[in-house]
Amino acid sequence: MVFLRLVIAASCAFACGTGYAQSSDVPLTPRDAPAKSLPVPTDVSPEMQRLIAAPLRTDWDAQWKTGEEARKAADAAAAKAIPNLAAMRERLHVTVKPQVIDGVRVFVVTPDTIAPEHRDKLLVHVHGGCYVLSPGEAATSEAIIMAGLGHFKVISVDYRMPPEAYFPGALDDAMKVYQAALKMTAPKNVGVFGTSAGGALTLEMMLEAKAMGLPMPGAISSGTPMSDVTKVGDSFYTNEKVDNVLVSRDGFCDAAVKIYAHGHDLRDPLLSPVYGDMHGFPPAILTTGTRDLLLSNTVRVHRKLRQAGVEAELEVFEGQSHAQYGSNDRVPETKEAFGEITAFFDKHLGH
Amino acid sequence: MVFLRLVIAASCAFACGTGYAQSSDVPLTPRDAPAKSLPVPTDVSPEMQRLIAAPLRTDWDAQWKTGEEARKAADAAAAKAIPNLAAMRERLHVTVKPQVIDGVRVFVVTPDTIAPEHRDKLLVHVHGGCYVLSPGEAATSEAIIMAGLGHFKVISVDYRMPPEAYFPGALDDAMKVYQAALKMTAPKNVGVFGTSAGGALTLEMMLEAKAMGLPMPGAISSGTPMSDVTKVGDSFYTNEKVDNVLVSRDGFCDAAVKIYAHGHDLRDPLLSPVYGDMHGFPPAILTTGTRDLLLSNTVRVHRKLRQAGVEAELEVFEGQSHAQYGSNDRVPETKEAFGEITAFFDKHLGH
Repeated sequence: MVFLRLVIAASCAFACGTGYAQSSDVPLTPRDAPAKSLPVPTDVSPEMQRLIAAPLRTDWDAQWKTGEEARKAADAAAAKAIPNLAAMRERLHVTVKPQVIDGVRVFVVTPDTIAPEHRDKLLVHVHGGCYVLSPGEAATSEAIIMAGLGHFKVISVDYRMPPEAYFPGALDDAMKVYQAALKMTAPKNVGVFGTSAGGALTLEMMLEAKAMGLPMPGAISSGTPMSDVTKVGDSFYTNEKVDNVLVSRDGFCDAAVKIYAHGHDLRDPLLSPVYGDMHGFPPAILTTGTRDLLLSNTVRVHRKLRQAGVEAELEVFEGQSHAQYGSNDRVPETKEAFGEITAFFDKHLGH
Repeated sequence: MVFLRLVIAASCAFACGTGYAQSSDVPLTPRDAPAKSLPVPTDVSPEMQRLIAAPLRTDWDAQWKTGEEARKAADAAAAKAIPNLAAMRERLHVTVKPQVIDGVRVFVVTPDTIAPEHRDKLLVHVHGGCYVLSPGEAATSEAIIMAGLGHFKVISVDYRMPPEAYFPGALDDAMKVYQAALKMTAPKNVGVFGTSAGGALTLEMMLEAKAMGLPMPGAISSGTPMSDVTKVGDSFYTNEKVDNVLVSRDGFCDAAVKIYAHGHDLRDPLLSPVYGDMHGFPPAILTTGTRDLLLSNTVRVHRKLRQAGVEAELEVFEGQSHAQYGSNDRVPETKEAFGEITAFFDKHLGH
């Protein structure tokens, strides 16, 4: 009989059962993982099953080279997205009004019913889309979901995008709106949230607020943040072509970030906030999914926040690819995710 | 130019950019993921890099058929593991004393220095090993790490395993020790923790305590729990042969659980606690890694706890396979993980 060297609690030091005598003998070579067939998870809602089962996003490997090219794609996508927003606003009983704050275009998203405990609260929303997608009203989808499900007033920043502006244009616009929000209510009553590039911008705003000596908001929600655009992050590899939204670290989003960065160092914490100093950040909730290409870059931010002594909650949803928790207000998991974010804001805003 | 249908915030409903007009048109077919090469993550400690880089565990596909066979493998592994424990006890300044509590074998693990705020606290430890591995002193590894790093007194349950006893022998033994612990200090001062099968047993103990009308402990730590032994859980598929510890849902651990279950229905919440009613559970911290075969079954428990209104924290470590956070007290990530567990117990025990 073969001698078995199985040990779960590896009290026998690193190299038990590996064929190596010492951990330092283990070469740092890549692991070859085989091709596999991934069934649709059974322990999620039927609506989420359809999202998970959907094929890889069409044209995930689009390689835009210029701001103009990206903008053309963004406009085409927005033209398809915007007609669906009216029904969503109606379902969720919110109104959306364009406005300009300190020269920055925003949408003020107001639910018909603001919860009594939310009357003095205000959320600032920074939308996703790899810093190039979702211009104009297309930016408001997540703000509508948050306002409608959470019964908060939300100001959604329609920040300038390429070719109108490049790094740090999006962040500059978001900061102007944040500074305006600080004048509308006490900082502890302000929440900032966003997903993907918006999740990264949320973190970048905190770094910038610290640098500018501005007060921190009461809490933030950073959904599956593009926290590292240098391609560091294990799930860029493990979840390649497992995530049906972003699909690959060499896909459209990578091309888009390079356009936005416009030659700037991608390792700058204002582009890759996982490298920023998170001491003094407000309480933060992070959301991702097990198939998310940015799973690693969400949990890395969570760990960095915890290492910096920040109260930080992590929510990971079964089987979901990038940002699928925020896709549609009628999906049960969307209600659950925004329910968690609302509960987190309720726990921390105003205190 | 190809018409681009990219939308990140999928306000255009489910089927945007998928080629399907309606979400209900999406067939629930598996996704084919390609073979890939996974580099060793760079944003973890050098010690953790060696653990992650280690090849798939030798004999991961051992298919024991009987309790006797499993025990033989367990004894061989324990014989290799136990000699390393003395140095670990010395490094961490703890003593380990065997004892019998209400007919159940235990090890009392006492740090030289018990933190003043921990003098009235007591942790009950249930070890991992697929319900068949780590007999006797081999069970104490995680208890030593917890006692040494957290400065808690720990009682580690050396529960009976096949062929000495089958389901629900492990749980019965753990419950006897839990009941004894309730007599040693107030329930709110008791914490229960374990990893893998021990993480599942921790949850099963809470279900059983509810059924028996016993008080809940102050808090629990369930590390990467074997919460679903029916092979439901997306990461059984996505992380197959990515996780170098458990490796496959059809590996040694699956064979072991079948031996322990001894013909009992695997869907019983006392074997698959993710299906149990978690209302009234104490605050819980869960720990896993992005490459963990049980990533899904950890996050599913987290979601079920949150749905049941339980305060529950999730920690997910970059690049780690199953239970690698608990492998070695000298790895920085181990200190970090047990630091989080200690902080969680400090927050909740006694209140």
